[in-house]
Amino acid sequence: TGEELVRILAVHKDVEITVLQALIEKEHPISEIFPRLSDKIDIVCRKPDETEALKKADLLFLALPHKVSMTVAPRFLGGGKSVIDLSADYRLPVDEYTKWYGAEHKDGGNIKNAVYGLPELFRDKIRQAKLIANPGCYPTSALLAIIPLVKLGLVDLDTVIVDSKSGATGAGRKAHISLSFSEVDENMRAYKVNEHQHKPEINLIVSKFAGKKTDVVFVPHLAPINRGILSTVYMDFSPEKKKKKINTAEIVGFYKDFYKGEPFIRVMNEGTLPTLRDVQYTNLCAIGVNVTGDKVIVVSCIDNLLKGAAGQAVQNMNIMYGFDEREGLV
Amino acid sequence: TGEELVRILAVHKDVEITVLQALIEKEHPISEIFPRLSDKIDIVCRKPDETEALKKADLLFLALPHKVSMTVAPRFLGGGKSVIDLSADYRLPVDEYTKWYGAEHKDGGNIKNAVYGLPELFRDKIRQAKLIANPGCYPTSALLAIIPLVKLGLVDLDTVIVDSKSGATGAGRKAHISLSFSEVDENMRAYKVNEHQHKPEINLIVSKFAGKKTDVVFVPHLAPINRGILSTVYMDFSPEKKKKKINTAEIVGFYKDFYKGEPFIRVMNEGTLPTLRDVQYTNLCAIGVNVTGDKVIVVSCIDNLLKGAAGQAVQNMNIMYGFDEREGLV
Amino acid sequence: TGEELVRILAVHKDVEITVLQALIEKEHPISEIFPRLSDKIDIVCRKPDETEALKKADLLFLALPHKVSMTVAPRFLGGGKSVIDLSADYRLPVDEYTKWYGAEHKDGGNIKNAVYGLPELFRDKIRQAKLIANPGCYPTSALLAIIPLVKLGLVDLDTVIVDSKSGATGAGRKAHISLSFSEVDENMRAYKVNEHQHKPEINLIVSKFAGKKTDVVFVPHLAPINRGILSTVYMDFSPEKKKKKINTAEIVGFYKDFYKGEPFIRVMNEGTLPTLRDVQYTNLCAIGVNVTGDKVIVVSCIDNLLKGAAGQAVQNMNIMYGFDEREGLV
Amino acid sequence: TGEELVRILAVHKDVEITVLQALIEKEHPISEIFPRLSDKIDIVCRKPDETEALKKADLLFLALPHKVSMTVAPRFLGGGKSVIDLSADYRLPVDEYTKWYGAEHKDGGNIKNAVYGLPELFRDKIRQAKLIANPGCYPTSALLAIIPLVKLGLVDLDTVIVDSKSGATGAGRKAHISLSFSEVDENMRAYKVNEHQHKPEINLIVSKFAGKKTDVVFVPHLAPINRGILSTVYMDFSPEKKKKKINTAEIVGFYKDFYKGEPFIRVMNEGTLPTLRDVQYTNLCAIGVNVTGDKVIVVSCIDNLLKGAAGQAVQNMNIMYGFDEREGLV
Repeated sequence: TGEELVRILAVHKDVEITVLQALIEKEHPISEIFPRLSDKIDIVCRKPDETEALKKADLLFLALPHKVSMTVAPRFLGGGKSVIDLSADYRLPVDEYTKWYGAEHKDGGNIKNAVYGLPELFRDKIRQAKLIANPGCYPTSALLAIIPLVKLGLVDLDTVIVDSKSGATGAGRKAHISLSFSEVDENMRAYKVNEHQHKPEINLIVSKFAGKKTDVVFVPHLAPINRGILSTVYMDFSPEKKKKKINTAEIVGFYKDFYKGEPFIRVMNEGTLPTLRDVQYTNLCAIGVNVTGDKVIVVSCIDNLLKGAAGQAVQNMNIMYGFDEREGLV
Repeated sequence: TGEELVRILAVHKDVEITVLQALIEKEHPISEIFPRLSDKIDIVCRKPDETEALKKADLLFLALPHKVSMTVAPRFLGGGKSVIDLSADYRLPVDEYTKWYGAEHKDGGNIKNAVYGLPELFRDKIRQAKLIANPGCYPTSALLAIIPLVKLGLVDLDTVIVDSKSGATGAGRKAHISLSFSEVDENMRAYKVNEHQHKPEINLIVSKFAGKKTDVVFVPHLAPINRGILSTVYMDFSPEKKKKKINTAEIVGFYKDFYKGEPFIRVMNEGTLPTLRDVQYTNLCAIGVNVTGDKVIVVSCIDNLLKGAAGQAVQNMNIMYGFDEREGLV
Repeated sequence: TGEELVRILAVHKDVEITVLQALIEKEHPISEIFPRLSDKIDIVCRKPDETEALKKADLLFLALPHKVSMTVAPRFLGGGKSVIDLSADYRLPVDEYTKWYGAEHKDGGNIKNAVYGLPELFRDKIRQAKLIANPGCYPTSALLAIIPLVKLGLVDLDTVIVDSKSGATGAGRKAHISLSFSEVDENMRAYKVNEHQHKPEINLIVSKFAGKKTDVVFVPHLAPINRGILSTVYMDFSPEKKKKKINTAEIVGFYKDFYKGEPFIRVMNEGTLPTLRDVQYTNLCAIGVNVTGDKVIVVSCIDNLLKGAAGQAVQNMNIMYGFDEREGLV
Repeated sequence: TGEELVRILAVHKDVEITVLQALIEKEHPISEIFPRLSDKIDIVCRKPDETEALKKADLLFLALPHKVSMTVAPRFLGGGKSVIDLSADYRLPVDEYTKWYGAEHKDGGNIKNAVYGLPELFRDKIRQAKLIANPGCYPTSALLAIIPLVKLGLVDLDTVIVDSKSGATGAGRKAHISLSFSEVDENMRAYKVNEHQHKPEINLIVSKFAGKKTDVVFVPHLAPINRGILSTVYMDFSPEKKKKKINTAEIVGFYKDFYKGEPFIRVMNEGTLPTLRDVQYTNLCAIGVNVTGDKVIVVSCIDNLLKGAAGQAVQNMNIMYGFDEREGLV
């Protein structure tokens, strides 16, 4: 995520990277670590130093582990800076956070000031925000598929199931045996079945639009792929709608209306479903719909490092600062 | 599938391959096509010749395309031979077959004589059978996950969803752009959403055990994997059971009882879910269970070329002829 | 290659795509075929029509099969247009072309007017060219590794071996059994050992710089990768140089000097070798060097669809028209 | 390697696994770790205990890290047991070992008693051996390709280059960032160029057959594959042979003669080269040959975990004990 952020910001017309810090052994020009960045950016990647950051930056992107962001963000916010936090630290209420992340929250006061950075749902609030809780990758793919029908009241909320298939970069760049090539390649696994920490994040937002508490089922799978999340969402129509026999074309129409003018949403025509190839290396979310009987099945695809992380963070910045929302993104 | 069959039968203690036929340009010793078979089997692969096959074989494995098997099988059956058919031609009633495979059935009379070759469910009938309809790969993975709970009456049949992820060999060895490496690699797609021809096969067997017509939802996905199917099955408990609060341990217990003594089923302990790695290159089906609230989620894994095709065919033969059911299989 | 070209040109500041033609069944807006292009380009992809092309375009990119380009290019050239041909039709002398591509050449007269479009070696000629023979992907990776040492006279030309590993998109988007996922995945093969049609292309350019005929050995391998070529080049120092004991640092220095200021070449520091990850989705060629005893081993990496095809074609256009050489490329 | 060994030995007709030890946190039945072994073997995997091992076993397979085997083997050998060591500890002379493995050798006395376990070259010595140094995976693939021509005196020894492409399991089951899926997948890299610790092992054996010191060049590459090594070996004919114009058919004939009757070698016919698919999940080495001008190019393929490790270890055991050399292996 950090690498992608730097890559995007290095060629963004309206911003300049003034500070680059990471937990590294030795300070290096960033282009020595990522040869493709040489020629584009010249900055040295330094060890963490909040004072330097406060002095030189107006906006800070925090691509820190969960539990670390909340120890760093307050000082920047207190210094009048804007913060886009890519961790989960500002996405949930304190009690849910503690339950799912197993840690006390150290900056609970700022949670209420944080705006959930899913532009297609919260663009107006993002425009005013000083603190963005950038969404998780799974929730981004799930919510963009679920919310249109929930908002229209078409869905029986007790029946929503999200079956997600994710590439391995979703877990970050880690040395862990379960993420080693010989474990992941030619293999597939379900994990954290209905107990993944992105489940409460999905339900929090669905609940907001539904107007009542929900219990969407969420099962993530690890696939032998580098980049991308494909979520297959299963929903029953609500009882009153079941009688009306809505067909695929109508539902496609609802989605096209809902996302009209959105620069990064592609709703597929009837009969076509998206694949990861349609979105990899872009900030797009591609959505396809299929209705059979009383059920509607929605397939949504994103690149987990872009629309699911760094790309969406830049999209949020573009909105906050009134830049062209597409700037730096494809 | 054909290659796997030859590989298994070449070292099977109780059988001899007396005839090997395929639609080929030129007749070859099989070991020239598959170098790993040299040293194990010496037979020449010839062009199709029913007369030779009738003369030399007691049992015929038909690994033919759908619509072709039904033109070949009757003559072998009429000649008193046994047939294990790996196509779909004898799996469905005539009307369903016509609807889903788009062709009139030319040997409808033999459908009622065919036994569905899923040994864990129909072993007694297989023992007596002269014609085996060897199950499809997706139905094998789905049914072994679904049937135990259906038989116990625990499941609300209107809620069953099968989300399957399959490797690319499931489609056979074909030159098709959608199966080319550059399309499949690093990609994932849902296809034939709820309209795959394996859907009626799944529902036919579920209906038998449920005692009423069912409409299980089935969505297959193509994953960048060579071998294996992982099916994630979502089911609600039936209304009366919901009140009883059944937990994962109990459901694991049900499955362990149901499959007690089965040589090729592995029910995972509570807290563990199977991965494709657990079953690839074996005839195993590995099953894991997770209960959350009113829903039970079952994950089942098979190697689509073995338990999903050639391995299961040999298992059926072993049962028909009273051989050790494990012979030739791992 | 065609898709990549459109993707790059659609956002190129200095050009407009005025005509888009392909051998297609039905005419479509290009964004229906590639959803990621919607929002960026609106043009309809039409069936081939030379008259329309002549009328609307100043420069034509031909991404046609070998043997087809030479039937199309003359009319455009005759009409005063510039042509960048991505096929092999203008890369070799007539006799070599006939020998390696098995066809008579129908536009032999234009071969001498064609400039070999490898900017790092022939930038000045490219600036004046009306017809560019855009290099093959393997030759690009091999020549950028070989030529610096040949030009310096350091190499025993009888010892040069190029062992290349290529991803599957190098073969184009084809339905061929040998390019199917189940053949390529988890597999590797050498093919056309020392008889690949890119061998004479490599030798033609090496000969030019060596001043004598050469017989560089070239063995391509197909790897289970989508994009990228890694070439490992083995060369003995020339006899007189062997005595001088040149070390890795000196050779790295030679390459850095040779490619000084080149926007798309990255010479790695001593001790580091490039990987495909360093260049995928970019127009870069990354080069690493290792000297052991009398041998120098050079590893070079490119993205076969960009520096090996569409990216290099755009780089050539930028040079021909005096645009910023980096425009549209990363 | 350990898992493969257990899998093979569990079904081997002539042996029984009496002791199974590993560096584990908690003692488990092996079938809990590898579900596919349940039903085949019942033994508990215990923590290391040499006394138990000495008491219960006649032959010990040591699948230990380098530098550990040499601290364990002497006690077993001293107790009259046979040892097949899969580490590098007994493959090199003391001085070479120290140089390449960076450690003093603690059991130098036993090195001269160790037999290099490459059956196709040293079968007679293996028959008498008490201590087998089981070959490395790269050397196995390289030596089986090189030695026939060296023994025939056909090769200019100064020109031998081994360019190997290996799958990721070659590095063992490790949590290391460079072996993580997101680093290896869709990537390729050369590493330890001409300084890999398998280089002296290759040269030691080539030297034995050449009768003089050699300096074969060896460059390994990591490919996004689980199992398999493909080595492409480049050799010039020796000066006197160059004049004789030997062709591919003759060289194929030499290899077929050399490996006549070998159960695990497959020499491909002229015009065919092996792929990894031909050998994966088998103990085979498949070899293909191509002659162009003065150069001979040999491609050899093995499964690194079988012929490159566990399979070859069992083959050695079969020879030592007079079992059928094929027993347990495919």
